[in-house]
Amino acid sequence: MTTDKRIEDIKKIIRDYQDFPKPGVLFRDVFPVVKDPSCFKKLTDLLVEHINSLPEKVDVIVGLESRGFIFGPIIAQALNIGFVPVRKAGKLPGELIQVEYSLEYGKDKFEIQKDAVTEGQKVVVVDDLLATGGTMKAACQLMDKVKAKVLDCLVVIELTDLNGRQKVPYQMSSLIKY
Amino acid sequence: MTTDKRIEDIKKIIRDYQDFPKPGVLFRDVFPVVKDPSCFKKLTDLLVEHINSLPEKVDVIVGLESRGFIFGPIIAQALNIGFVPVRKAGKLPGELIQVEYSLEYGKDKFEIQKDAVTEGQKVVVVDDLLATGGTMKAACQLMDKVKAKVLDCLVVIELTDLNGRQKVPYQMSSLIKY
Repeated sequence: MTTDKRIEDIKKIIRDYQDFPKPGVLFRDVFPVVKDPSCFKKLTDLLVEHINSLPEKVDVIVGLESRGFIFGPIIAQALNIGFVPVRKAGKLPGELIQVEYSLEYGKDKFEIQKDAVTEGQKVVVVDDLLATGGTMKAACQLMDKVKAKVLDCLVVIELTDLNGRQKVPYQMSSLIKY
Repeated sequence: MTTDKRIEDIKKIIRDYQDFPKPGVLFRDVFPVVKDPSCFKKLTDLLVEHINSLPEKVDVIVGLESRGFIFGPIIAQALNIGFVPVRKAGKLPGELIQVEYSLEYGKDKFEIQKDAVTEGQKVVVVDDLLATGGTMKAACQLMDKVKAKVLDCLVVIELTDLNGRQKVPYQMSSLIKY
């Protein structure tokens, strides 16, 4: 994505918290952007423009629990397409497809409803932030299992030091890089 | 809220799952609505119209993790006001205000950032569903602690058998009642 005055406006109100959630981590808090209606509009416009610039038309926006839920539905609505959630294990009813992924300590599971995305549908996977890339990679594996075509993995903030995008098997886009 | 053809359209695609998340519970799944862009638009329009019908102007939409994140930001954007999250303990950085609430087994905690809502601001608290009312009550207690004025507690689906609204200390509105 190109530099844009709007990106500078958004960066100005993202807040940094040293040592959260644990010592040595600098947390980038995107919620002040969502609290500022003009900035949030700029942010969702930028995400929508990015998706509209993709060479193929997207069928479904897939959002990761829970901060992907902040951005996914509003983008999907602007594009007049559907939104489908990927959730932590145990939260979705019905027939599910599951993928396990590693956390720093132990493992966690992501789930999607079996009929939520159909074979061959073109999806963009949305989350707020890319850090080590573990959850985005897991979401891509889930998309492989339902035989969706991932056109793009899209986050608001990318922490480039952590090289998360190396883990992501599809096109990876971010609006703001630190 | 009055009966509306749009509400009937939305009800038609809400899916029921018997015995989820545990035996004896009938789960109402709102996600098929979010997957259908025309129905999701009807739903967000109805929520926005309801908020616009309140006698006072709302300053902030407060949404509960994590399904309140699906509806809160898109409503806030349509109203050109801010969105503020209430999250489970340990997920928000900075200075926080906390409230404890009881679950069926044990307790949980909700948190909000201390400066997210200021004294006297008029808020609407949004979630997807009202069941026993425990989490909505906790969110209202959090609003009391930050001295916000709760104009309305608004959910998409209310399970009236569970009498959750009796626990909610402020005006309680729902779009769809079962």
